[in-house]
Formats: sequence, structure tokens, C-alpha cells
Amino acid sequence: MTVKIAVAGCSGYAGGELLRLLLAHPEVEIGALTAKSSAGSTLFEHHPHLTPLAGRTVVETTPENLAGHDVVFLALPHGASAEVAEALGDDVLVIDAGADFRLSDAAVWEQFYGTPHAGTWPYGLPELPGNRAILATTKRIAVPGCYPTASTLALLPALTSGIVDGHDVVVVAASGTSGAGKAPKTHLIAAEIIGSVSAYGVGGVHRHTPELLQNFARLGAPNPSVSFTPVLVPTSRGILATVSAPLARPTTPDEAYAAYQAAYADEPFVTLLPRGAWPMTQSIVGSNGVHLQVTVDAAANRLVAVCAIDNLTKGTAGGAIQSMNIALGLPETLGLTAIGVAP
Amino acid sequence: MTVKIAVAGCSGYAGGELLRLLLAHPEVEIGALTAKSSAGSTLFEHHPHLTPLAGRTVVETTPENLAGHDVVFLALPHGASAEVAEALGDDVLVIDAGADFRLSDAAVWEQFYGTPHAGTWPYGLPELPGNRAILATTKRIAVPGCYPTASTLALLPALTSGIVDGHDVVVVAASGTSGAGKAPKTHLIAAEIIGSVSAYGVGGVHRHTPELLQNFARLGAPNPSVSFTPVLVPTSRGILATVSAPLARPTTPDEAYAAYQAAYADEPFVTLLPRGAWPMTQSIVGSNGVHLQVTVDAAANRLVAVCAIDNLTKGTAGGAIQSMNIALGLPETLGLTAIGVAP
Amino acid sequence: MTVKIAVAGCSGYAGGELLRLLLAHPEVEIGALTAKSSAGSTLFEHHPHLTPLAGRTVVETTPENLAGHDVVFLALPHGASAEVAEALGDDVLVIDAGADFRLSDAAVWEQFYGTPHAGTWPYGLPELPGNRAILATTKRIAVPGCYPTASTLALLPALTSGIVDGHDVVVVAASGTSGAGKAPKTHLIAAEIIGSVSAYGVGGVHRHTPELLQNFARLGAPNPSVSFTPVLVPTSRGILATVSAPLARPTTPDEAYAAYQAAYADEPFVTLLPRGAWPMTQSIVGSNGVHLQVTVDAAANRLVAVCAIDNLTKGTAGGAIQSMNIALGLPETLGLTAIGVAP
Amino acid sequence: MTVKIAVAGCSGYAGGELLRLLLAHPEVEIGALTAKSSAGSTLFEHHPHLTPLAGRTVVETTPENLAGHDVVFLALPHGASAEVAEALGDDVLVIDAGADFRLSDAAVWEQFYGTPHAGTWPYGLPELPGNRAILATTKRIAVPGCYPTASTLALLPALTSGIVDGHDVVVVAASGTSGAGKAPKTHLIAAEIIGSVSAYGVGGVHRHTPELLQNFARLGAPNPSVSFTPVLVPTSRGILATVSAPLARPTTPDEAYAAYQAAYADEPFVTLLPRGAWPMTQSIVGSNGVHLQVTVDAAANRLVAVCAIDNLTKGTAGGAIQSMNIALGLPETLGLTAIGVAP
Repeated sequence: MTVKIAVAGCSGYAGGELLRLLLAHPEVEIGALTAKSSAGSTLFEHHPHLTPLAGRTVVETTPENLAGHDVVFLALPHGASAEVAEALGDDVLVIDAGADFRLSDAAVWEQFYGTPHAGTWPYGLPELPGNRAILATTKRIAVPGCYPTASTLALLPALTSGIVDGHDVVVVAASGTSGAGKAPKTHLIAAEIIGSVSAYGVGGVHRHTPELLQNFARLGAPNPSVSFTPVLVPTSRGILATVSAPLARPTTPDEAYAAYQAAYADEPFVTLLPRGAWPMTQSIVGSNGVHLQVTVDAAANRLVAVCAIDNLTKGTAGGAIQSMNIALGLPETLGLTAIGVAP
Repeated sequence: MTVKIAVAGCSGYAGGELLRLLLAHPEVEIGALTAKSSAGSTLFEHHPHLTPLAGRTVVETTPENLAGHDVVFLALPHGASAEVAEALGDDVLVIDAGADFRLSDAAVWEQFYGTPHAGTWPYGLPELPGNRAILATTKRIAVPGCYPTASTLALLPALTSGIVDGHDVVVVAASGTSGAGKAPKTHLIAAEIIGSVSAYGVGGVHRHTPELLQNFARLGAPNPSVSFTPVLVPTSRGILATVSAPLARPTTPDEAYAAYQAAYADEPFVTLLPRGAWPMTQSIVGSNGVHLQVTVDAAANRLVAVCAIDNLTKGTAGGAIQSMNIALGLPETLGLTAIGVAP
Repeated sequence: MTVKIAVAGCSGYAGGELLRLLLAHPEVEIGALTAKSSAGSTLFEHHPHLTPLAGRTVVETTPENLAGHDVVFLALPHGASAEVAEALGDDVLVIDAGADFRLSDAAVWEQFYGTPHAGTWPYGLPELPGNRAILATTKRIAVPGCYPTASTLALLPALTSGIVDGHDVVVVAASGTSGAGKAPKTHLIAAEIIGSVSAYGVGGVHRHTPELLQNFARLGAPNPSVSFTPVLVPTSRGILATVSAPLARPTTPDEAYAAYQAAYADEPFVTLLPRGAWPMTQSIVGSNGVHLQVTVDAAANRLVAVCAIDNLTKGTAGGAIQSMNIALGLPETLGLTAIGVAP
Repeated sequence: MTVKIAVAGCSGYAGGELLRLLLAHPEVEIGALTAKSSAGSTLFEHHPHLTPLAGRTVVETTPENLAGHDVVFLALPHGASAEVAEALGDDVLVIDAGADFRLSDAAVWEQFYGTPHAGTWPYGLPELPGNRAILATTKRIAVPGCYPTASTLALLPALTSGIVDGHDVVVVAASGTSGAGKAPKTHLIAAEIIGSVSAYGVGGVHRHTPELLQNFARLGAPNPSVSFTPVLVPTSRGILATVSAPLARPTTPDEAYAAYQAAYADEPFVTLLPRGAWPMTQSIVGSNGVHLQVTVDAAANRLVAVCAIDNLTKGTAGGAIQSMNIALGLPETLGLTAIGVAP
């Protein structure tokens, strides 16, 4: 099977990472590359690393240019996906790397984004219990946010096994700066970031907060709450999420570890590290891999889990292709690796 | 007044930072520079930036070499300070940048360090209520750990004002790698650190955990508990501590901010940032400054504070000199700045 | 003496570094802070590290706002300095951190900058032979470019001693990204810079090329030529210039070292490292220091010198204040240090 | 065909990169993983990113353990390869990632390495004219050094077309720190490297100097000479080599570009960038790609070329596998990509 694929919003980091991975995928053909203000430029101007596509011209994001593809990835700013998606037929697999279709509660969406809710699509996190069956039969997929991917995978086994109940979760997650996108902003230029660590979106205002709560609820939390603090660190890629939650019942570190082992035994991209080893983002940079460790801090009465992903790969483009593989009936790992480029 | 100063353990990062700051201090004369295995080398071999001392020879850490100084700084490995300190007269101001005399509970010391407890010295964090009077009259000072400095200052106003009670505190603190010292270890070489973020000492096992609890208790917490996770990031300096704690009573963000303003109004090195601005370590790198912000996450029912310090300056050598100034009756800020080298 | 100082163009990196250093200068009072598009904002919004000035309002760069100061620093875009300088009286010391008045040859200026030549001011590199006398009596100073500062100091003793004649010089200089300024551009955002090294302005087109040639000629080169390649590296500060030139006469490494020793013996900010030690930018970051080493590659018949400076300090703001001190009759090193913030 | 492969010296960076690439190679089976002091440990302890091999035990580097493989890669310290290679049969393809068999002149070897010359093997740089035929029929391959790979490819078309004659070449090459290996040394720990740029091995003493000269001679330089300066920069991977040489005949930038286009038109891993675009290492990090640009600096009478490679991939392990593919009669690009992990 050769699947013809278009990428709408190809000039940004999500678009570039999708193309990097698709170039290594054995069953796809890369079709239209579209953008808005970058239309007319060559792909080289945006992604000099993608040499096989260097001479390709970026065209405008229009229904005409996106027609005739089996799969269309959307890597667009908030609020732009719905209109583009509507123009695509129901038989086209549309995978939105943006936020528009992630949340199921319209009121929550409007509170955090300030725009009308576009709808809700199946959530492209295959590791959620029962989710692969849903993804296998859909033509519309909402790719999870990068922070929710790391944080949800960090807590999933603890929630499903009842070790924690999802109340008073605390997430502090460090992220490389590619997660902030490619638009030039003064606070993101290199001299502001190198040698510096900073917090932002503190106090429950970050837009990934409701997505976290939605995921915790889906995993069984009766009354989830979360304090989420994102931290910007001087790397280009990688998220390290430190997630802790009060124990719902007395649990030893061994029991917690066993629960994680059981939950992830068959997951192709998730690696629970050997006991005592803690994740480093370097191990999964550039890959779809997830590195995890868990323990119990008895004195603090909290389970603590740490999860490393690449925000652009498993956290965006890799996760999107993993879901695409499922939706197309291809082997889930096709074209993807769990092995990072270390050191 | 000219104060004659010796630095025992001058070849490491704490020793180097002490010397960098002392070279800019108008009332000191730098005397003996001592070390153990580095004795006989020149200071240039360890600290090429300290050009005025480049030709000075490092001598062995012996009572003879340390005699005849008004102040002796100890920047030694755990367990080595007591013996050196005993040989110094009671009239010599001894300031230990290590951990040996920080904890008051001998059993806790032995649990975390596995060696006999050396004793307890006045704790060199001038910002603790009532602490300046103690430091002004002592000849022995234990410099706080870098993580506890940042985390304690982050929570101090919330504890003293009763907004939080010090129970179920969660600290996730990112640190540059100079905090891990200068001994060559494979996991600290540059290729392992650059481009990577990692957690270590997770689950309550880091040795700064009991120091945090001791500080929270001193600030009024009746039953303190803390989940503390240190995170290594690719900077050479800087700690960014994200500290959250459940509200002990309903509190608005405005009330929390006002409490922090009141607590730190007269502190020369602590800056509560304008509302809405969050700390970045770059702003205080190389300085004794502390940058802070606080808010309340109502949905999570937690106060969240973020604090940035330079682990080598305010977190070690700068804090040590600040305490020295107090103990010597000098202006507290002499030879120190709160302004970082940014960008 | 208290000197009242204005900084025109205070919102960028050069302006911020001038203010950081001026805050530590014992003989100055900081007056007007001006800018163009940033007028009306607080200084905190641009330089959160400069806490003593956090609440100061940035005003527009007008003759009125700049009146009444003893010294005015200009940190403006190319072409903007002349008009501002003209409105200032002849008794005001005007120090231009930009390029407008560096070159003496109007045709060369126009070739590289494409605008009319504004004129030529005394060149603020005190280390040039005979230059201190000129700077001591001028009211107009052109601050050298950062690359020319490093490269000229790297070759000065070899030129003045006749070891090289300034023909076929090759300069490859790595620079941190603060040298590229603070304007947000896509190729300067952190994710583009971290983990990457790149060349730019290759082939003699960089605007610092004619300034290098002018300096080599001033140092006695009868027919200077230079191949200059700037390289962008993932640090925020620091230039490391590798400069080589064919030997004009047979020279041993010892002779070359001796020539450098002699030339810089009395320079307060220049350190020729011990034989065999090569500069690292870390040693001078945040300082006005210059670290140097030289050798002779007999097989290649070239002298090779390596020079490290901080592009924002000795390469811009520190050099400017060093020249200001001379012009004001103050001790040349006042308010400056040669000691970097390492590690 | 399934080729059984052993890696001797698997615990270092070259070994880890070989295994990362071999895990993605469709025609190989990974056999013995050997080392010296690390024997008995698991591979996870050395390379946590290589999850499929995490539980594999490292065994000692002995003839017995290396027997029974089709290909043996040697990633050993200088001087150790000869003895290991001798014990392997003539039908085993032995690829040495170290320096032992690179140089053809025994006297030069002894001058730079101070040990007896082990011999000379075919040089694993397929891009050298006529070299593929040699590599296709050999059972012994010496992998080029990382700096020589970048510098030779930077100058190859200029030499073979006679634009330069290889005399008075100047190479200044920035490298990430993985090139310095994984042994813990104080000057390589992260705090010493981050935020710093430094030169080392200046003045013709770096061991890659004779390899450069040997390559230039092989490409036709009648009397090659080179001034080579390596520069350490704070990245984990990547070399950016700036190479210049006097023009042997008048040449325009267009002519130089055309010569490079012609020389590399059919090279699968070498990309001459569009005119005016200069390489950044990010574009080829983690890949076997080579990014190049060239121009002529008429005023300096030099051709200037800049070349970016990943020191661990094209500069070591990727180049080794490319040569292996040729020697085994496999498609040269099998298991390799030219696309870097950017940003």
C-alpha cells in the first residue's frame, strides 16, 4: 500500500518533524506541502535538513491543494483546523496536530482558548485502555498535546491500578524550546534561553491543564485535580515530566513498579527503566520512545513518576504517525523508532 | 578593616566561586588556599578565570596552613569539616559550605549521610526570621544547601503568614550541573548533559530533603512533609525551584502576593517580580540575587511559588559571604551584587 | 566626581550590558534611558536582571531627553547615531557602540553598509599603541566591533614586532548569539541555535572585515588581507577568535610568546595565559578580560593566536566604559573586572 | 543476507553509535558486544537509549568472543586494534573506527602517536575518487577521523579541479564534545563546557593533522601544508569545519560552486546547499549527511568552504557502516539516512 499524504502547515516544527518521519516511512508518498504566509517558498528555506524535499514548493492551504490525498495532517494555529477539515471528504484520514479537537467539554474549551469549540475527535494516544479499537476505525484524530502525553503516560498505571485516585496531582514538566514553536518572539531567541531556566503559564492557566484533567478522568479519577507548571529549559527537544500524586492506598515502591510493568508490558514505545534508573530526555530524542520510572515516597505519602518524551516526536509528529498507522491498518510501529539519538 | 581569609578546598566550584567573590570584596585579603590532592598545583590549573591569583600555589589543608586567618571557609567533602574546624581557634570565624553542620537531628543526619553527626552550627540563611541576630554573634556558620536555599525562600512568606502549613509540599527543582561538583564522573561529562534533562535522587532520598523539612518546621510548620525531586538541566549555573503546597485557608492570588511583598520588602537580595512575571535563572546568574513569584491555583487548591537563584552564589559562596559580612559586622551586601549576568 | 550618564538604545543587549556595568561603577549616576519603539515601557520588561532600575520608564530618544548628561552612550541601529550625536553639545562625551564612526574610508563604508558615511571618531581600543593619549582628549569615541576587538588583540604583538606582516591573515571566530542582537528573527530562536553550529557572512562580506583591515594597517601591515569567517555557536556570550598569519621571518614559539608577553605586560585587561594553556570563553564571560595564547606552527609556516573575549563586555559595553574612564580622566579599570563568571 | 556483527569496544560513544545504526539496518544481526573494563555489565548501563539491547551482557574483548562473526567493528583506544585484528580470520570484515591503520607513513605515525606503526588499511572514505573499488574488495577498513572527514570533503572538489593546490590550507573546525570520548575528565564535565568555547591542540600538534595532509596529497596536492585548529563547542554532536586555501588560479564563486556541484552530483550523502546558504550542524545531526557550501573571497584570494557532519555518524559510525555496505556488496546507503534530527 502506498498512502498519499499532505501536510498543511508544513513550515513549522510540527510540520518539519512530520515530514522527517514520513520520509522514513516505507508506505507513504509525500504529496502537497501547504502553508499560509510561506506559500511560494521552497521547503529548503524552512527545513534545510529535509534534503530530499529541498526543492519542493510550498503551496497555499486550500481545499484544492489538499484534495486527492489519503491522509492530511494539520499542523495549524489554534482555530484554523475546523475549516480546513470540513472541506476534506469523510473518507480522508485527517489528523490534527493542534488543539482544536482535543477537549470534549465545550465550556472548558472556551474558558481556556476563548474561541468557539470546534468539536471533539478521537484522541490519538493509543496507550489509553481501549483506545486502539477506536483509532482503528476513525477518519478523524486529535493528536494529544506534548505535556499531556508525557504526564498521562507517567500516571496511567497508577490510576488504572488504583494506587492513586487522580486528586491533587502535581506536574512540573521541563520542556525544550521547540515546543514553543517557530514564530520569532523575543523571549524565545537563543540568548534568552541558553543558560537560563524559567517557568511560565503557572497557576493552572496553561492550556494543557484541562487536557490533563480530561485524561485523568478517562483513566478513572473520580474527582481529578492538578497543579501543572511548565518549565522552559535550554534544549531544543525533550520533555521531562515529574508527576506526583497522593497514595490512595498504602503502596510499596515494589508494588508501584509492578503495576507499571504490567500496564506497559506490551507497549511498543514505552520503556519502564530498570529499577533505580531515572529517565533522561537524551535517550529518546528524535524518537517515538517513552522512558519512565516510578517510586513511592513513603514519608511524603506520594507516588512519584518521571517520564521523558520528545515533544516533537512522541509528543506530536511521532504520536500522530503512530495513530495514523493504526487508523490505516498498518503495523503500529511502521516508520518509527523508540531509540533516541544519544548522546 | 582588612580581614584575612583562607579557603580550604579551593580547587572545586564552591572554592572557586568564593575566591571570585572575595576578589571583589573591598575589606578582605586572600590568604592561604588549601586543598588535598591538588596541593602543589597553581590556582590557574583549577580556576583559569581567577587571573589575579593565577600564580598562587595551593597548599595542603593543615592546621598550620590555616592558622593566622580571621576567617576560614571550608569547601570540603562531607565529613571532613569537623576535624579541620576543631583545630581552628574559637576566635576564628569558620564558615562551612558543606553539609556537616546543617542538620540539628543527629539521627536524621545519620540516616541520610551514614556517618556520625558532627554537630549543629548556626544556619547561614539571613532571611530566616530572627536569624540575623544569631549570625551577628557567632563564630561558626553552616551554609545552607543550594536547593534548600531556593525552596525555603520560595515558601517562607506563605508559611510565616499561615497561607500554607508546610504539609504535603511538592518541590521540583531544576539545577545546572555545577551543583554536582567538579569531580569527573561519566554521567556528568558534557555530552551526557547537553541536550538532555534528567531526574535523580527521586522519592525522598536526596540529602537536601531533611534540610527542607527542618527549615519548614523552623518557619512554623507543625507537621511538615515534602516530595522533593531534583532535575538536572544543561546549564552550568542556576536553580529554578517550583514549590507548591495546599492552602491552609482560602487565599486569593492578591493576598498571596501581598504576603510575599510584606515578607521581603526589606531584603536586599530578594526580588519579588512584578505580578505576572515569572523568574528566569539568567537574571541572577553570577549574583547573590533571588528572583521570586507566587500565585494561587484555585482549582488545584495550591499556592505555587517559583524561585531562581544561582546555586554557586546565593546557593553557596555568595550566601556564605553574606553571612560572613553579618558575622563580621560589615554591611551585609558588601562585595555582593543582586544583578545577574544576562543574557 | 559623579558623572551623569544617558543610554540611548537601552532596550537591546548592548544597552542592557552598559547599564549592568554602570550600576557597578562607583562614579556614575544613571540618567535618561531612551529607546524608539520601546518608549513608555519599564526597563524591567527588557532587562529583568537590572532590578535597581526595574521601575524606570524608557523615554523616547530625543535631544530633549538626552540633554543635561555628561556622557551619552549610543546603542542604536546602523545609521542612527549621527543625527543623535549632532544634537549633543561638544562638551558631552558621546560614545557610539555602533558601527557608524568606526571606518575612516568613506568609500569602504558605503561599500559595506550601503549608506552615506557619517564620519570617523577616535577608535575606542585603548590597547592600540598610542591610542590612550587620543582617547584621553576626545569627546567622541567609536567603540570597536566585537570580532575586530578579539582579532586585533590576537594579532597586535605579532604585527608590531614584525613576526607577521598582516598579509593573508585567516580569522575564524566563534561567537555566542547575543552578538546578533535582540530583534526576534527565526534563525536566532533557541531551537535553531541550541545543538547547532553554523557559519554566516562567509567570503569577505561580513561588515567587520574592513574594520579588521583598517586595524592591521594601523598596526603596520603594509598590504593587509584577511579571510574572515564568523561562526555562530550555542552560547549566549563569548567570542573565540582563531587567527593565523604567515610568518614574515623565521620565528620560534618561544620568540612569539615573548613578543606577546612584552606587548601586553602592562595591559590591565589582557592576560597572556601560561605556555600551553589555551583560552576558553568561560574564563572571561561577563568581564572585560581578554585571554590570549600564541604559538608557531612551523610545518604550516604560520603564527597561530587564539583570543577569548565577551562580545558584550570587552567587545562592546565594557570596552566602551574602559574608553569612557580614559576620556574622563578616571582610573581606566574603574567599575570593571577582568575576572569572568566561570564555570 | 543477514550479516552477523560484533562490536569490540561497545561501551563508548563510537560503539554506542554503531549499535544505534546497526539496530536500524535491515540486513544485520547484532552478535557479541565486547569491552575491557566494562565486561560483565549490561548494555543499559552504558547506552540507556538502546532499549532493544538493554539486557545484553557486555563480554570481554577476546578472540573467542569475537569469533564466528562476519563483521567485527573495533572501537578501541589507540594501539589496541592490531592485536585484536590479527586474531580474526582473513575472511572476516574488520572495520577499525580508531586511528591505528589510517596513516601510511610509519615515521609520521610514530611522530604523532609515539608507538610502533601497526600498518595501513584501505581508507574508509568512499567519496575519495576511485576509493569505492578498493573498499569493495577489502576485508580491512580504517575509518577516517572525524575532523579529516569533514575537512577533506570540504576541499576535495577544489583540489581535484585544481582551483587550489593544497598549499597553505587553514582549517578551523568546531566540534561537539562527544568527539572527545566518554572517559570522565575534569575539563570535559558539563559545567566546564556549557557556555564556553575553547581551542585545543593548536599549532599542528593534533593527531588529525598528518591525516589531513595525507588526504590532500592523495587528492593531488603536490606539496600540502595545513594549519589546523580544533575548537570545542557546547554541543554533544556535530563538526563544522571552515576550510580555506589560496587560489591556484583565478576563480569566480560561480566556477567554484560548479566544481563542487560536479564533484558531488552523484554522492548519496553529500549535499551542496543552494547558493548563499551556509551549513548548520543541526541539519545533519544523527545522520550520515554532509552539508557543504563554498565561495571565493576575492579580496583575500582564498577559496572558503564550510562543511558540517555529525562526528559520531558520518565522522565515525555512519561512515564505517557506509564502507561496510560497500565491502559487503550491499546498497551503500542501506540502514543510513542523510537527514538530520532538526531542530
